[in-house]
Amino acid sequence: MSVDSSRMEYRAVRKAAMSLSLLSDDERSAMLLRMADGLQRNRDRIFQANGEDLAQAVSGGTPDALLHRLKLDGSKLEGALEGVRTVASLPCPVGRVRERRLLDEGLLLEKVTYPIGVIGMVFEARPDALIQIVSLAVKSANGIILKGGREAMRTNSVLVEIIRESLDGAPFLMLLSSHSDVDTMLSMEGDVDLIIPRGSNAFVRYCMDHTHIPVLGHADGICSVYVDRSADLDLAVKVAVDSKVQYPAACNAAETVLVHEGIAGDFIPAFRAELDRYGVIIHADDRSLAILGGESGNVVRALEDDFHTEFLSLQLALKVVDGIDEAIAHIASHGSHHTDAIITSDETSRRRFFSEVDSADVFSNCSTRFADGFRFGLGAEVGISTGKIHARGPVGLEGLTTTKWQLSGSGQTVAEYSGSDARRFMHKDLPL
Amino acid sequence: MSVDSSRMEYRAVRKAAMSLSLLSDDERSAMLLRMADGLQRNRDRIFQANGEDLAQAVSGGTPDALLHRLKLDGSKLEGALEGVRTVASLPCPVGRVRERRLLDEGLLLEKVTYPIGVIGMVFEARPDALIQIVSLAVKSANGIILKGGREAMRTNSVLVEIIRESLDGAPFLMLLSSHSDVDTMLSMEGDVDLIIPRGSNAFVRYCMDHTHIPVLGHADGICSVYVDRSADLDLAVKVAVDSKVQYPAACNAAETVLVHEGIAGDFIPAFRAELDRYGVIIHADDRSLAILGGESGNVVRALEDDFHTEFLSLQLALKVVDGIDEAIAHIASHGSHHTDAIITSDETSRRRFFSEVDSADVFSNCSTRFADGFRFGLGAEVGISTGKIHARGPVGLEGLTTTKWQLSGSGQTVAEYSGSDARRFMHKDLPL
Repeated sequence: MSVDSSRMEYRAVRKAAMSLSLLSDDERSAMLLRMADGLQRNRDRIFQANGEDLAQAVSGGTPDALLHRLKLDGSKLEGALEGVRTVASLPCPVGRVRERRLLDEGLLLEKVTYPIGVIGMVFEARPDALIQIVSLAVKSANGIILKGGREAMRTNSVLVEIIRESLDGAPFLMLLSSHSDVDTMLSMEGDVDLIIPRGSNAFVRYCMDHTHIPVLGHADGICSVYVDRSADLDLAVKVAVDSKVQYPAACNAAETVLVHEGIAGDFIPAFRAELDRYGVIIHADDRSLAILGGESGNVVRALEDDFHTEFLSLQLALKVVDGIDEAIAHIASHGSHHTDAIITSDETSRRRFFSEVDSADVFSNCSTRFADGFRFGLGAEVGISTGKIHARGPVGLEGLTTTKWQLSGSGQTVAEYSGSDARRFMHKDLPL
Repeated sequence: MSVDSSRMEYRAVRKAAMSLSLLSDDERSAMLLRMADGLQRNRDRIFQANGEDLAQAVSGGTPDALLHRLKLDGSKLEGALEGVRTVASLPCPVGRVRERRLLDEGLLLEKVTYPIGVIGMVFEARPDALIQIVSLAVKSANGIILKGGREAMRTNSVLVEIIRESLDGAPFLMLLSSHSDVDTMLSMEGDVDLIIPRGSNAFVRYCMDHTHIPVLGHADGICSVYVDRSADLDLAVKVAVDSKVQYPAACNAAETVLVHEGIAGDFIPAFRAELDRYGVIIHADDRSLAILGGESGNVVRALEDDFHTEFLSLQLALKVVDGIDEAIAHIASHGSHHTDAIITSDETSRRRFFSEVDSADVFSNCSTRFADGFRFGLGAEVGISTGKIHARGPVGLEGLTTTKWQLSGSGQTVAEYSGSDARRFMHKDLPL
């Protein structure tokens, strides 16, 4: 497809999204229920297409982990449809008044949430992600340009077909098919307002480097747990272990554990004993290696690179630090500004960590794995952002909105408020 | 300066900004008062440097408008220092709790405002802008990399000198001197968090096109006033005239006036009579030209380009439309999503305009010139953004902040909240 013809299609998506935004929240929620029902009724078509995708993936030698994500079975579909119904029941994210100020009698200013416009979303193998993404777009009245993984092409096409059947053609939705379409999308400044990539770090980085459109997401998730001198030992072991092993492939799993030298002699052996139960490989710096009695079993000597690595597996880097200053400095130079936790019973340490660690999420005395839109109670998760602009950390439906200033007057000119006998503004904040 | 040595200096600015953020708001406000006093005490040094800049500019044949902006006299300096003291008195923009949610007993989540980090700001001739920008950075605890206009180099250097003398060296502040430094800054992804350009449209566009760092600002300000059929005639003339003539060089001045055909015969002659008093040149489309009796005096036939032009002077483009649909469509295809106003006494028209015009500011029955941080009651204006991400429309100090999620636990692991006998989250919103 040429860039020019794409641009026309993108603009048609924007126009359809505008129509969507003129519906009431009840109408958009009803659409979501129709969509869920349609997908449920047509589950056999979905499973058949998914079976074909799976068969081709198997014959192509696709790794098991990817096959697992590609497979859309009954329980995964049920989960996705329950998600759609949950999104339908959430409060309406658009049209909310965030500020209301009487500038003067008869001159009312309101800052109101508003759909962003057109979202470009690229996701990997999982076809259930498509269902979730479309439901978020409908609820927030945004147009959506989707590009799924090549492996899931048949499944995704059938899902979109059924969604179109259920929602009068769903013109606010466009499904891209080729990789070159992604590059076209990345060049559509002005016609796409926000790019949300979900995929490998390398892919997210590729998107960030190849577009002037804002990108919501995170490339790396190098999260650290710092065990302060004052930490409760049992609590520290429990939380640090959970941060690593509860789901090691997640972006919010800990990759590095930093330990205050004053507690290292007690903490490190206890920590190792627990990690051994899960078969976690420890990349230990010299000081922790000395405490661990040298390389042996799951313990290897850390290379400097290990402290810059997102293992995404049962491995971690371990380092003894002189104190909280070194821990904070280490996180600043090695972390990815995603999620970092301190284990401490000292309030001053907690405060310092919260103030000085410049990450989207800073935690005390709990697992880094809590960094998640559902656990945070955001209702639905759009993604996790390590950018500082727009939205940071786990992002809910709010991340698919912008705001608009609405000013309703009764004939006011700026000339009246200028010069020597100028009228003065009231600037009276009103309740929301 | 090489990119690598720049990077080291930028990181020193970030570190100093972190120290700034650890001060209390009272301490930062006291710094602002010290800075204002220092500038006041050293006004003669400032005026002397500014005199040298002016002399060189005059001898170089600089146009009057630019000389006017370059000149920093007693009253401009007083105004700027009053601005600094006002910023000192504003509520603290950082450390504000935006959300507070008890995820479970002993597991408290807070979303807190936080400085963005390092702001890169480029501004044109006006040296008083430097004073304002530094005051905003100090108040919000951000580091700031500044590049002023070449014409104002001596004045800016002296201003920074005095600020450094007043604020223990002000290490959170860096002044760039060459144009190539701007390109270096635009390449400093990761070391600069936000670029705020203030200058010509072409310059803002240049910044947007040459960086992957988010840019807060607007290139064009093509604002429209639409006079609906139901408009009060006198009110429409008064507001439309103010939108154009009150300060034509501003980004929020109207460039296009669209008139419903049902009121055009009455409105256009009355509007022209007022515009003639100010010598405004009207670029009229065929239908309005017919009402105006053809080209004559200040009336010329509009070219299509005139409806895409930001005149920034006493000129406007005038068009008769069939109704609100055509007006909305015209604004979508010709406007710059900055500020657009409807003049109407029909509530349905007002609502449609507010919903369907996708601009940062949508106004009814008042001048587009109200689009301004001070008039909006934001306390201080960082800039006006036509982007939809982060901040839109006039942006106050809030635009120099991001947020951070802080989660304080007491030993919680995600494992406890997973699986068949999982603990359930409370997700109880607490008052702010």
